[in-house]
Amino acid sequence: MSSIAFAALTSLDPESITLISRQIGGGPDAWQVDEIGDGNVNMIFRLSGPRGRVLVKQAVPYLRCVGASWPLSLRRNYFERKALEAHAAVAPEYLPRVFAFDDASAAMVMEFLGEHIILRKGVMRGVRYPKFAEHITDYMAKTLFFTSDLFLSASAKKAQMQLFCENVDLCKITEDLIFTDPYRVADENRWTSPGLDAMAHTFATDPELKIAITELKAKFLGSAEALIHGDLHTGSIMVNQDETKVIDPEFAFYGPMGFDVGLLLANFFLGYYSQSGLGGNPAEYETWLLEQVEQIWSKFAQKFSALWDEHLQGDYLPARLLTSDTRAQVIDRVRADYMTRLWDDTLGFAATEMIRRILGLAHVADMDEIADPTARALSEKRALHAARQLLLNRRKYANIPQVLGMIREQRGRTFT
Amino acid sequence: MSSIAFAALTSLDPESITLISRQIGGGPDAWQVDEIGDGNVNMIFRLSGPRGRVLVKQAVPYLRCVGASWPLSLRRNYFERKALEAHAAVAPEYLPRVFAFDDASAAMVMEFLGEHIILRKGVMRGVRYPKFAEHITDYMAKTLFFTSDLFLSASAKKAQMQLFCENVDLCKITEDLIFTDPYRVADENRWTSPGLDAMAHTFATDPELKIAITELKAKFLGSAEALIHGDLHTGSIMVNQDETKVIDPEFAFYGPMGFDVGLLLANFFLGYYSQSGLGGNPAEYETWLLEQVEQIWSKFAQKFSALWDEHLQGDYLPARLLTSDTRAQVIDRVRADYMTRLWDDTLGFAATEMIRRILGLAHVADMDEIADPTARALSEKRALHAARQLLLNRRKYANIPQVLGMIREQRGRTFT
Repeated sequence: MSSIAFAALTSLDPESITLISRQIGGGPDAWQVDEIGDGNVNMIFRLSGPRGRVLVKQAVPYLRCVGASWPLSLRRNYFERKALEAHAAVAPEYLPRVFAFDDASAAMVMEFLGEHIILRKGVMRGVRYPKFAEHITDYMAKTLFFTSDLFLSASAKKAQMQLFCENVDLCKITEDLIFTDPYRVADENRWTSPGLDAMAHTFATDPELKIAITELKAKFLGSAEALIHGDLHTGSIMVNQDETKVIDPEFAFYGPMGFDVGLLLANFFLGYYSQSGLGGNPAEYETWLLEQVEQIWSKFAQKFSALWDEHLQGDYLPARLLTSDTRAQVIDRVRADYMTRLWDDTLGFAATEMIRRILGLAHVADMDEIADPTARALSEKRALHAARQLLLNRRKYANIPQVLGMIREQRGRTFT
Repeated sequence: MSSIAFAALTSLDPESITLISRQIGGGPDAWQVDEIGDGNVNMIFRLSGPRGRVLVKQAVPYLRCVGASWPLSLRRNYFERKALEAHAAVAPEYLPRVFAFDDASAAMVMEFLGEHIILRKGVMRGVRYPKFAEHITDYMAKTLFFTSDLFLSASAKKAQMQLFCENVDLCKITEDLIFTDPYRVADENRWTSPGLDAMAHTFATDPELKIAITELKAKFLGSAEALIHGDLHTGSIMVNQDETKVIDPEFAFYGPMGFDVGLLLANFFLGYYSQSGLGGNPAEYETWLLEQVEQIWSKFAQKFSALWDEHLQGDYLPARLLTSDTRAQVIDRVRADYMTRLWDDTLGFAATEMIRRILGLAHVADMDEIADPTARALSEKRALHAARQLLLNRRKYANIPQVLGMIREQRGRTFT
């Protein structure tokens, strides 16, 4: 047992110990602690007892994947808990259960998802999850709609917003790593060299990209639409054939809805572009991945729109503004405008996520595990090419089939 | 001395009494308290002592102009103080000095502006203020720029935002009175009847207006750009030939910049449209008012843009994103897009303010003091007609001369 693991266990307060004991039986003397985490941000332990196991997620006062040179407030653990609570109030079936929150050790004790794997790993192995699109769109539609002022009163929304205004450390990571560094020469950036040297240079210097990324960053900084997950990539989702669980909402804050939807789509695109490099005969799985993209957007849009019909009770469009004969017309137009903007944001944020995962500090295993650097560079160039197109010209793509058309057209593209 | 006034004085804490004594001399026994307020929201007293006088602004737990049936948190006094502090840090010359803040009595002790009058009263009397446009644009450019993430780090901005997230009572007044009630049949609405009956009915039922107002309300609810004054009409400004003082920022919160600029322009438009009804020979003064509108927008845009050159140090467009050879190009394009959006917001919010001051609960004296109801209705119809045009078609007006062209063209319009 590592000393860090030991510290995590011994610093739990008596109430937490009682709550854990209820889940796994016995007491601390009978429990085994193993550090299992490979997260970028926190320490992760498995706590096993006579009757079961739980997961302990403990914050350390720095960004785990970088070290003490990148200090981070321990309070991120608190924001994660608050986000889990808010999202569990509307979509509990897609979240791990939380058993205890231990303030003293900045630790959260949660359901151990032993029957699930990280979606990214599943995608890299070519596994299909037939229920995933249904689940994740249900999760996104509900968490985004019910935390927005489409559903909430302005005062209820601002009370939540106020709480997450403090979660600035993690927002800062996103601001730097997604919206700034890939578009400049930065020591933190890394990419497949020499294959991507020229492209990295282009991205770091092109004024059109700097202008486009600033437009999206402005939305991230100032568009307080909903309590977003804030880091909804395929590594923040655990799946099996029957269930989908969204984890790690420590980046949560009141931001633009399209950021969640866009990050998810981007990681499916990255999965798609990585397949040819990962070997095997991926054509059918590539098709499945693009089908998921299509389904994620269309099912999300459909479910989110449907919530307007049943639950439009927030201050955004109050019922008393509508008369019986104008109601349908007004809601339809306001909703259509809303969805157009959300679609535009989604494409923009999807592009930024693809770019930063190839040229920035934090990469994805989908690409990193392509062993041959030439094949990796080719996959990455194709992804970057599509992402650049979306970032600069996204308003040309009115719907998801048009985006997928562009991506399929360029499928075999090579670069000289 | 009224019992309310007496209560205000006797409940001041000893520290406040010392601070007041420093301004006006003597002690409570030697002071005279007079209630002088005609504000919509708070009680206002003049406190006179042997060597001077101060103003005491005391919150009551309801909206003063409505009564106990409209409860309001006393904390609005606290938010006003915080807004004054934040704005005084960047534009102190345009704000009254604050001498004491008395928590127990929800009272603020401020500079008594005895040499100034409410700008609205000056406008109704046809007085020109040659320095006003220069002053108010300086105030708006500085308060909006320096509280936004053009200047602030994201974390510094969110710390301020967090504080004002609680100022929901007063935001709710705006949400209801500006963005909802004039566009529905509401008991609270009032208008010049029967002259405006038909127009009020049109505004209360037109689906196009309901759609347009929802777009603007969405910005008010979710666009956290800067610490705005939140109620910047000509009744919130005190002037004389040399000075301009902006008062009453209790509606302050992180909202869209165009709301402040738009409200101010709207009140000049209302002043303009009221002139013919107020009598006299107003043609020259009408010209002066429209010149003010032109100058307010153009000087504001110029000063706000100039601050980008000197103080663009916030997280919106970080310096490290810019390279020496792209810097000018990127800043120019980002700024041009920013100003285009701000102009569009300004026109939209200006329209909403004109509409609500004619069809909603809270009117302006400019119109209300037109004694002849036929003349009043004509002035109001002209204003409403222009406001409707701006609300629905504002993107047709690329600049302020085009707006003024539309207004001048319709100058003598009659309605059958």
